[in-house]
Amino acid sequence: MKPFMDENFLLNTETAKFLYHNFAKQMPIADYHCHIDPKEIFENRRFKNITKAWLEADHYKWRAMRSNGTPEDKITGSGSDKEKFDAYAAVMDKCIGNPLYHWSHLELKRYFGFDGCLSSKTADLVWEHCNRRLSEQNMSVRGIIEASNVTHICTTDDPADSLEYHLALMREQSFKVEVLPTWRPDRILKIEADDFSDYIMKLSAVSGTKIETLSDLKSALIKRMDFFYELGCVASDHSIEYAFYVPISEEQADEIFKKGLKGRELSREEIDAYKTCILVFLGEEYAKRNWVMQLHMGPVRNTNRVMFDTIGADTGFDCMGPSIDSRPLTQFMNRLNQASLLPKTILYSLNPNDNALIDSVIGCFQNDEIPGKIQHGSAWWFNDTKQGMRDHLISLASQSLLGNFVGMLTDSRSFLSYTRHEYFRRILCDLIGEWVENGEFPNDAELLGMLVQDICYYNTVRYFGFKVRRS
Amino acid sequence: MKPFMDENFLLNTETAKFLYHNFAKQMPIADYHCHIDPKEIFENRRFKNITKAWLEADHYKWRAMRSNGTPEDKITGSGSDKEKFDAYAAVMDKCIGNPLYHWSHLELKRYFGFDGCLSSKTADLVWEHCNRRLSEQNMSVRGIIEASNVTHICTTDDPADSLEYHLALMREQSFKVEVLPTWRPDRILKIEADDFSDYIMKLSAVSGTKIETLSDLKSALIKRMDFFYELGCVASDHSIEYAFYVPISEEQADEIFKKGLKGRELSREEIDAYKTCILVFLGEEYAKRNWVMQLHMGPVRNTNRVMFDTIGADTGFDCMGPSIDSRPLTQFMNRLNQASLLPKTILYSLNPNDNALIDSVIGCFQNDEIPGKIQHGSAWWFNDTKQGMRDHLISLASQSLLGNFVGMLTDSRSFLSYTRHEYFRRILCDLIGEWVENGEFPNDAELLGMLVQDICYYNTVRYFGFKVRRS
Amino acid sequence: MKPFMDENFLLNTETAKFLYHNFAKQMPIADYHCHIDPKEIFENRRFKNITKAWLEADHYKWRAMRSNGTPEDKITGSGSDKEKFDAYAAVMDKCIGNPLYHWSHLELKRYFGFDGCLSSKTADLVWEHCNRRLSEQNMSVRGIIEASNVTHICTTDDPADSLEYHLALMREQSFKVEVLPTWRPDRILKIEADDFSDYIMKLSAVSGTKIETLSDLKSALIKRMDFFYELGCVASDHSIEYAFYVPISEEQADEIFKKGLKGRELSREEIDAYKTCILVFLGEEYAKRNWVMQLHMGPVRNTNRVMFDTIGADTGFDCMGPSIDSRPLTQFMNRLNQASLLPKTILYSLNPNDNALIDSVIGCFQNDEIPGKIQHGSAWWFNDTKQGMRDHLISLASQSLLGNFVGMLTDSRSFLSYTRHEYFRRILCDLIGEWVENGEFPNDAELLGMLVQDICYYNTVRYFGFKVRRS
Repeated sequence: MKPFMDENFLLNTETAKFLYHNFAKQMPIADYHCHIDPKEIFENRRFKNITKAWLEADHYKWRAMRSNGTPEDKITGSGSDKEKFDAYAAVMDKCIGNPLYHWSHLELKRYFGFDGCLSSKTADLVWEHCNRRLSEQNMSVRGIIEASNVTHICTTDDPADSLEYHLALMREQSFKVEVLPTWRPDRILKIEADDFSDYIMKLSAVSGTKIETLSDLKSALIKRMDFFYELGCVASDHSIEYAFYVPISEEQADEIFKKGLKGRELSREEIDAYKTCILVFLGEEYAKRNWVMQLHMGPVRNTNRVMFDTIGADTGFDCMGPSIDSRPLTQFMNRLNQASLLPKTILYSLNPNDNALIDSVIGCFQNDEIPGKIQHGSAWWFNDTKQGMRDHLISLASQSLLGNFVGMLTDSRSFLSYTRHEYFRRILCDLIGEWVENGEFPNDAELLGMLVQDICYYNTVRYFGFKVRRS
Repeated sequence: MKPFMDENFLLNTETAKFLYHNFAKQMPIADYHCHIDPKEIFENRRFKNITKAWLEADHYKWRAMRSNGTPEDKITGSGSDKEKFDAYAAVMDKCIGNPLYHWSHLELKRYFGFDGCLSSKTADLVWEHCNRRLSEQNMSVRGIIEASNVTHICTTDDPADSLEYHLALMREQSFKVEVLPTWRPDRILKIEADDFSDYIMKLSAVSGTKIETLSDLKSALIKRMDFFYELGCVASDHSIEYAFYVPISEEQADEIFKKGLKGRELSREEIDAYKTCILVFLGEEYAKRNWVMQLHMGPVRNTNRVMFDTIGADTGFDCMGPSIDSRPLTQFMNRLNQASLLPKTILYSLNPNDNALIDSVIGCFQNDEIPGKIQHGSAWWFNDTKQGMRDHLISLASQSLLGNFVGMLTDSRSFLSYTRHEYFRRILCDLIGEWVENGEFPNDAELLGMLVQDICYYNTVRYFGFKVRRS
Repeated sequence: MKPFMDENFLLNTETAKFLYHNFAKQMPIADYHCHIDPKEIFENRRFKNITKAWLEADHYKWRAMRSNGTPEDKITGSGSDKEKFDAYAAVMDKCIGNPLYHWSHLELKRYFGFDGCLSSKTADLVWEHCNRRLSEQNMSVRGIIEASNVTHICTTDDPADSLEYHLALMREQSFKVEVLPTWRPDRILKIEADDFSDYIMKLSAVSGTKIETLSDLKSALIKRMDFFYELGCVASDHSIEYAFYVPISEEQADEIFKKGLKGRELSREEIDAYKTCILVFLGEEYAKRNWVMQLHMGPVRNTNRVMFDTIGADTGFDCMGPSIDSRPLTQFMNRLNQASLLPKTILYSLNPNDNALIDSVIGCFQNDEIPGKIQHGSAWWFNDTKQGMRDHLISLASQSLLGNFVGMLTDSRSFLSYTRHEYFRRILCDLIGEWVENGEFPNDAELLGMLVQDICYYNTVRYFGFKVRRS
């Protein structure tokens, strides 16, 4: 029996251990997609206790607590921090096979130096231990990031955002990590939202552009993209419920946009047509700027109206939608490709059934601009599990070239989740080790080391065109 | 090489063996969903030969026989019992990797004391052996159930059923196993069926309620639910081809109902709207009674018209439908939740691609009424296989809390299939053992034992609120 | 650590080795579906270099090269053969976990006697080695086929094809391998194609039948089927994007056909209705001739218009469509079955999510005409991988009878890909070996040997009714 989560955690062969300890472990982290708040980096936030760090914003943990029958009061409500922590500790007892178990213990080990097990029995001990540790000097947000060997962070930012903290961080000499904005224009596409016209007014103000027509909107967006570009943005990101492609004329799109601005009812067809028009426009602009286009496809959001009305969006009430349809997706990509303006693209799908389909789609638009121009993004959200990552890697390797994969990202709201890169790297090295020891690939240390380090770091840096701003 | 199906069958680690033999094996069985006939329990049926016990009603076995080119005559037709048994024995030779192979041999071992292999060569021997054994005193239906350590059985019953055998069994002092009815109102929802109005007349008669309007129907259903409640019913069950949610007004639903009663043609939209209305009504009533709502989603039934016309429904000609759409499903659950009348719910899906989606859906409606209020039901029907159960458990554990799972059920028409609980328990212990020996969860015997016993029995008892009627 | 791809490649237990080396390895190959050109067999083509043999027509390899950023010039363009080979060798460095790695090395070992690794470093060496070997006497197309122990080859042929090379091969005394045509009438169904009427004119000419009505078309098709029959055809094949079933009258179908001939716009419904009509007609004709009906379902073709316009179809720009809907599929099969004219049928699906669904569908139409009358075809195209084949076999075994499976086919355009049968056989023996050593099936060498040899060869021969023309 292997000890619980020791240094060879998830590494089941000698080759896996060799690859992880000699090649993967020491690689820096380029975290090209996350949801952390640049303000907290700039202000170098400190956490009063482990509940503030762990349970303030993590809807993965909240869902697990609700599944354990925890009252909402002790999850997002007025319960004390200690009560909330105790409730989470009790979850651990039921949590076998869940990545939360591994993530939590990796964080306890790496950041808090706690090597035991968190459970309802040890909750008090862990609470004391972690809070003591959090009071130490290096346990600030920047300290944590630097200790995690992070070189680049791409946050997720609205086009109307002032990016003031990105600007401030750019000017900050003492913090060497690149913190770059990512262009996430979901609210531009969401013409059916109640607050669409309010949002357009906000965008109008921030861009200094009167927005009454689709053409005005595009002008405003170009200004904002240029602004993001100046601040080092190299990627966009979209959350899309399902694949769509409904081509219409510019005039028709302009009419739909004006209806949307007035808050008029739109048909599903009109909504999809408007979104198609905007996404094509944006895709072309991304290509011109050499930005990466990330499409996160498949979530059905805010399914529980009672909880949405109580605590709002992104609080743990989203689920997977049906599988993605490859027909509109490839039609959209083909449209951009015909204009020679298909940007580097990363396709993520929330439904794990889409692994094989996405891997077949990316193979249809590769070319010699860059190896692996079209990527199948790392196992996402509900799939960010041992099995989910393994399945994703096997499918990708089976249909594409694993050696050109841009690898892992945290997609997290927490500063402690860089250990998810460790989790991924262990799973990657274990899989490669298994293949090698099984005689399925040559035992060539140099070649294997290169593969591992490319997937862990170098492919990402090359693909996103990251530059080291200060050395 | 491990011996064929010995006491450590499917238990591949020492921890798996320890957990199975020390915790799982001795747990009683609360079989919360099956299709056995309470009449046969009451009458304490005996079987003349193994064909009567095995091949009289088991469409899993029939399908396998048809796949082997067996003439229908020797499956459901006028062939002799020995011919049918021989044909099934011949199936065994081709049946590697199929759960029928394991189920059949577990039954031969546990109930018949036969430790060899069934094959075309041993058919005569096994026939003699089993029939001799069936003539022994304890091989009656009740003897088999008691020997299987069953404490509760939930049958599947139509709202118009008299439940006479449940009543009779309640009064029976000598049989200690709880046999409870389950409310299965499929024919109430099936407004498009040719015999819908006939069925409503039957319901009218049995409930003593004239049913001319939707409101009448609801009154009749409430009477019948109250009757089921009195007989100890704690759960409902629905077979649903696909997820739907088409909300309409009570008046519109009433009109559709009346059209249905008159046998008029209904559109797909009208049918789904009527079903939505009824299912919302029933869901609320279940919540009021603290009943569990079971939704079995996804079967496409009676695909083979020739065979349907010859031998009727449930004879092995059903298949999986496409994946479930989470949007109407969550809209339906949200509707009940907004009324604070979402009952405890178990979602089953026939298409294994739905595992991850369902696991993401259940996480959206958990609360503090009970740990694991919304459940993803055990791998069902075509997925009730080694791989299917393992995949289900891994997916559930990855996204939810495995420790709160209500576990296995037989879903069977046979009195010999309690060994499916053994099959499940072995797979469960093997998976947990694998995780522990792989260093993925602490080797804490007390915690692990509790997890295993909860999943095997205690969670079920708590979730369904079973009470021990006689001690 | 196992040596790289030695004689026990993919065989992880003693039982697996025993089964492969004693039963599987020596079985002949009946390659019942491929895309090789009978002209090249008749002319006994030789290859000037390894690029001609490997990279001239293999869009699997082309896709991998594009994924590696190779310029199209060095894939399908004017680059030299050596440049193309070097570009493919560089792919190998990134190709871990991809079947191309295994296929390429199996071919290097079995046909070229090269036991090393192909990589960017060894490209020159391998180029020299293989080209030298290709100049040897026995390295002609016929030499390769005979060395591969092939007894039957079913090519893929258009109804309007003259089959001249099949005729010529029939008369050839010196070549003992049966080369049979397969009836692939995709262009008959593709009424929406621009060249539909041109094609019908071609069919008209070749069949000597004026085709102005649907009835004429059927007459022409019957003549051509009779011609294919005379040349030993035993199977048809269809590529179908999705399952459809839209029954209409003969008159309505005739009208749609006439509109199609005139090149008029047709609705999706009309197209599906026409296809339904033709496919039902053809299915009945197949049944009358005892032909196997193969349905390859799910590809979305020619997604990349720029590349289609440059290098045409079947060049590596296809992807998976969504999962197949079992409802129209079973309605279609039921229609034929009601007429007692459902032929032997093999269902293939491109989306691996369909494995379980297809396995549930085939169980609905089995009967005593032949064991395994309805088959789930071997893992296809994007799924023709180690994991894909294993998943297919496990799913098939779990729901059907693995012992009646007709097994592997190459589906290839290359004369060197018979090693894919070896790949399949190793995976099959490994899976069976794993089950046996795990105590899940008896260790009965005779029974296991029969299972393996049936699946590798005998089931195919029996199912397709192959006869040995010359002994």
